[in-house]
Amino acid sequence: MAFGWIDEQAELRRRAGLVRTLRPRPADSPLLDLAGNDYLGLARHPEVAEAAARAARTWGGGATGSRLVTGSTELHQELERELAGFCGFEAALVFSSGYAANLAAVTALAPHGSLIVSDAGNHASLIDGCRLARGTTQVVAHADPDAVRKALGAHDGPAIAVSDTVFSVDGDAAPLAALAGACRRHGAGLVVDDAHGLGVLGDGGRGAPHAAGPAGADDVVVTVTLSKSLGSQGGAVLGPARVIDHMVNAARTFIFDTGLAPAAAGAALAALRILRREPERAARVRAVASALHARLTAAGLAAVRPDAAVVSVRAPSPEGAVRWAADCRAAGLSVGCFRPPSVPDGVSRLRLTARADLSGEQIERAVQVIGETRP
Amino acid sequence: MAFGWIDEQAELRRRAGLVRTLRPRPADSPLLDLAGNDYLGLARHPEVAEAAARAARTWGGGATGSRLVTGSTELHQELERELAGFCGFEAALVFSSGYAANLAAVTALAPHGSLIVSDAGNHASLIDGCRLARGTTQVVAHADPDAVRKALGAHDGPAIAVSDTVFSVDGDAAPLAALAGACRRHGAGLVVDDAHGLGVLGDGGRGAPHAAGPAGADDVVVTVTLSKSLGSQGGAVLGPARVIDHMVNAARTFIFDTGLAPAAAGAALAALRILRREPERAARVRAVASALHARLTAAGLAAVRPDAAVVSVRAPSPEGAVRWAADCRAAGLSVGCFRPPSVPDGVSRLRLTARADLSGEQIERAVQVIGETRP
Repeated sequence: MAFGWIDEQAELRRRAGLVRTLRPRPADSPLLDLAGNDYLGLARHPEVAEAAARAARTWGGGATGSRLVTGSTELHQELERELAGFCGFEAALVFSSGYAANLAAVTALAPHGSLIVSDAGNHASLIDGCRLARGTTQVVAHADPDAVRKALGAHDGPAIAVSDTVFSVDGDAAPLAALAGACRRHGAGLVVDDAHGLGVLGDGGRGAPHAAGPAGADDVVVTVTLSKSLGSQGGAVLGPARVIDHMVNAARTFIFDTGLAPAAAGAALAALRILRREPERAARVRAVASALHARLTAAGLAAVRPDAAVVSVRAPSPEGAVRWAADCRAAGLSVGCFRPPSVPDGVSRLRLTARADLSGEQIERAVQVIGETRP
Repeated sequence: MAFGWIDEQAELRRRAGLVRTLRPRPADSPLLDLAGNDYLGLARHPEVAEAAARAARTWGGGATGSRLVTGSTELHQELERELAGFCGFEAALVFSSGYAANLAAVTALAPHGSLIVSDAGNHASLIDGCRLARGTTQVVAHADPDAVRKALGAHDGPAIAVSDTVFSVDGDAAPLAALAGACRRHGAGLVVDDAHGLGVLGDGGRGAPHAAGPAGADDVVVTVTLSKSLGSQGGAVLGPARVIDHMVNAARTFIFDTGLAPAAAGAALAALRILRREPERAARVRAVASALHARLTAAGLAAVRPDAAVVSVRAPSPEGAVRWAADCRAAGLSVGCFRPPSVPDGVSRLRLTARADLSGEQIERAVQVIGETRP
């Protein structure tokens, strides 16, 4: 029978305690949320919601077509200009998701015969970009600029190095300046995903590439998401205008996808403007992450020192992690739970996300619940 | 220099007259739109816009996380239930785009050792799904159930056949019933993309699989988009509950992507409810497409008889197609222009899309402009 193998896989997952199920939340969930990626607390900001509503009324529920046909509105253009300017790049191109932006950046910048040097800890969307690209991928050790240098040095022809700026599982930062140096020395491009850096790192949340120096360089391309710090949906590629023009002409997930919904573009633009006006939100989310880490460590938990907003806490086993997260939830706290196969190293962990709008009292409560439910 | 090869490619495109540029539209564009995919004229329906606005206010600008973490709301669940019920399937899973839904369906249903039989005319997102999947892809002749039968018969082990239901370039329909028969005979699954069928074909717009019979069968999986007939953004996979559960557990573009923005889910749900209430919209868009085809043919133009809402008109050359579309635009008519490399056969064409809300007068005007600007 068709799809018979699915039942076997489902049975294996059940036995391993690895079944994933959806848990739809109500609009007024009483849970304290340390699981989402709304780092700046802007997803439910009245100005953001109002901008989404206004955009839907002005432009309609959808973009109606590919960005190359009817799907580009003046609102998309406005968002692209402001986003590029804020992050220090010449140009930007907005996609329907960060996933699509990453597929686009890697595939369009790694033609046949080229080399992609990819960090072993990269996000699934970058990995899929490598797999889709016509170039050859070489996976190198996590956060190791020497390994990148060596790989680039051994290749003749176009090459890019690809990395998250902040790795989503453990929340650790990539050695961006060293990576940029390695790439420049070998005439290679640097492509980094700043999904967890935008709004959190750099001057007023301008992102990790802005903080580390390479933002705006002619050999650097950055992808961001509009669905984390900017509280909306979508992604973008930022870079030199000639690279963005190339994306328009060559990136399949741009050409063959419907444009981002106007409401999402409007919401992201409103969030960006709030961030410009209130740059202290970026510093605040970093302070909350540090406070979370300090309290968890003081409580004897194995928390990884955060480089941005993600705080990872080791769990003893996949089943232990699942039980821990469930016990937190029962105690009113929503935390992320990462376990195989979505972790690179087989280590299961709770994944906590700091938010700029968490109070000291909420941080205390979260740490207390996590400590008390420890397996 | 990094990305130096991009300038060479740009120069080649310029010489070939194949440069693509974005043309952001204002909210009150005076153009008559025969280029977008808003087949039922619902993208700007007040109820759709209002539902998007309400969802943004109730749920925020974004879903805040993966559907498996914080990104599933009761609104997503409601949309999934109604969509599955409407199209005649047991379950549905909503994605941030139709592109992501297609990547998910193909990759999650074609494991290592399996065979994917893929129609030569399939959409880019299905092709990318085939390239990402661990199974082996065999491309077969366009709309040829015998070729599918032969390919499936020569393979031992899990297999799927993959096809658009309505092909986006020429608007022709796939031989769905024959494909379903071929798959069933060989114990293979059928995976079809009904992006251009939902809202247009079948009883009240329930889609091509509903019309042809295989909807709801336990060996059939359908993907749809929320960004065409439903005037919003996003995509969905429809199928047996066990297949949908499998997607939740195995589809990377589901697990590692932020959930669809609430505003987009709300807009799509509102559009679906309008379609249930006003099923005549589906018949109307088919009648408009037929009328367009008849008038164009009567005017001596090489239009392809439409099986759904897309009407394709052959152009003499890529440059001729570009000039034709530009001349239409100058005369107040927006039409699509497909040319290499985004056509499978090297034939450039104008691509017209029918809309349920086009008046007879607008159809006349469109045909007149297209005839007068003919290269």
